[in-house]
Amino acid sequence: MPYVNVRVTRDGVTVEQKRRVVEEITRTLVDVLGKRPEHIHVIIDEVEPENWGFAGVLTTDYRRAQE
Amino acid sequence: MPYVNVRVTRDGVTVEQKRRVVEEITRTLVDVLGKRPEHIHVIIDEVEPENWGFAGVLTTDYRRAQE
Amino acid sequence: MPYVNVRVTRDGVTVEQKRRVVEEITRTLVDVLGKRPEHIHVIIDEVEPENWGFAGVLTTDYRRAQE
Amino acid sequence: MPYVNVRVTRDGVTVEQKRRVVEEITRTLVDVLGKRPEHIHVIIDEVEPENWGFAGVLTTDYRRAQE
Amino acid sequence: MPYVNVRVTRDGVTVEQKRRVVEEITRTLVDVLGKRPEHIHVIIDEVEPENWGFAGVLTTDYRRAQE
Amino acid sequence: MPYVNVRVTRDGVTVEQKRRVVEEITRTLVDVLGKRPEHIHVIIDEVEPENWGFAGVLTTDYRRAQE
Repeated sequence: MPYVNVRVTRDGVTVEQKRRVVEEITRTLVDVLGKRPEHIHVIIDEVEPENWGFAGVLTTDYRRAQE
Repeated sequence: MPYVNVRVTRDGVTVEQKRRVVEEITRTLVDVLGKRPEHIHVIIDEVEPENWGFAGVLTTDYRRAQE
Repeated sequence: MPYVNVRVTRDGVTVEQKRRVVEEITRTLVDVLGKRPEHIHVIIDEVEPENWGFAGVLTTDYRRAQE
Repeated sequence: MPYVNVRVTRDGVTVEQKRRVVEEITRTLVDVLGKRPEHIHVIIDEVEPENWGFAGVLTTDYRRAQE
Repeated sequence: MPYVNVRVTRDGVTVEQKRRVVEEITRTLVDVLGKRPEHIHVIIDEVEPENWGFAGVLTTDYRRAQE
Repeated sequence: MPYVNVRVTRDGVTVEQKRRVVEEITRTLVDVLGKRPEHIHVIIDEVEPENWGFAGVLTTDYRRAQE
């Protein structure tokens, strides 16, 4: 009975990309762990870059510094 | 000291429904586990149907297929 | 398609109490939100009191101070 | 390899406040646990007050009652 | 900067299975979303079956009823 | 009303370290966001290194490769 939570920065992820993420992760859990698809939930959280801190700074600041 | 996270698809849940969900879950934890209400937090996350995968497909696609 | 996560301190919660928590929270989501039981997952996390901080102190210290 | 999730009510938290929260929590994990900054992720979730239940009522109702 | 949390019932998942789950989910996020591997964290939580409620009953009871 | 979840690998974190993590994070939320201490919960999850994937491999394998 798996539950999967995928958290990524909100950067224009398309519906088609979400479709593939859900499809592939579900297949992984079916293939590797023998789970039944109808027991698998995959929730994608898109997080604003200014709400995601990495290495001590906000992702928005981090990216600006990388440029 | 309970913390509860309820995740549901965003489908027009009303404030009155949220009120009842919080009230009833809090009462359950008070009655069954003897917790004090002022230590109980219940957070409701409303997730876009296109971000919730079930049985390998997005909920939006799943619902369309059920129609 | 609800997913519920209940986090409580590990204080000897019995199987019968877990049974009631799952049963009542599921009924709340069915009654209030019209969800189908077979789409509802409720996960209970029992957290060691020394891993749960409240009001700036560990629950173990907090309880000792209350005595 | 720490992951931190900070959940607060959405009450006009500024970018500068998010910056400080991320900076200080990262420093705490570096100083106290000896973690490397580039392994630390801090995600801030801003939750609508009507989606946050406390002591059995929604935060919006709780605040109104405190006034 | 993805973070993934996989929650499954604790049913004798082997290290080799965990290895494949982490490897495949990471590859999915790299291939589909273009993320960098060194920014991807995947945490597997193994939950005791008696702590996982499904369709209103504990997984332990659910399985017993299926036999 | 903040809730904080700190997830780290289980590597012999001491009670004194947990005490400082809780104390400092609570102070950060009080100082930066003006929250009240008695509304702040900080939960520390210690995750087995073999359950934490990073950069596509389990932390146990990652560390072995670094040696």
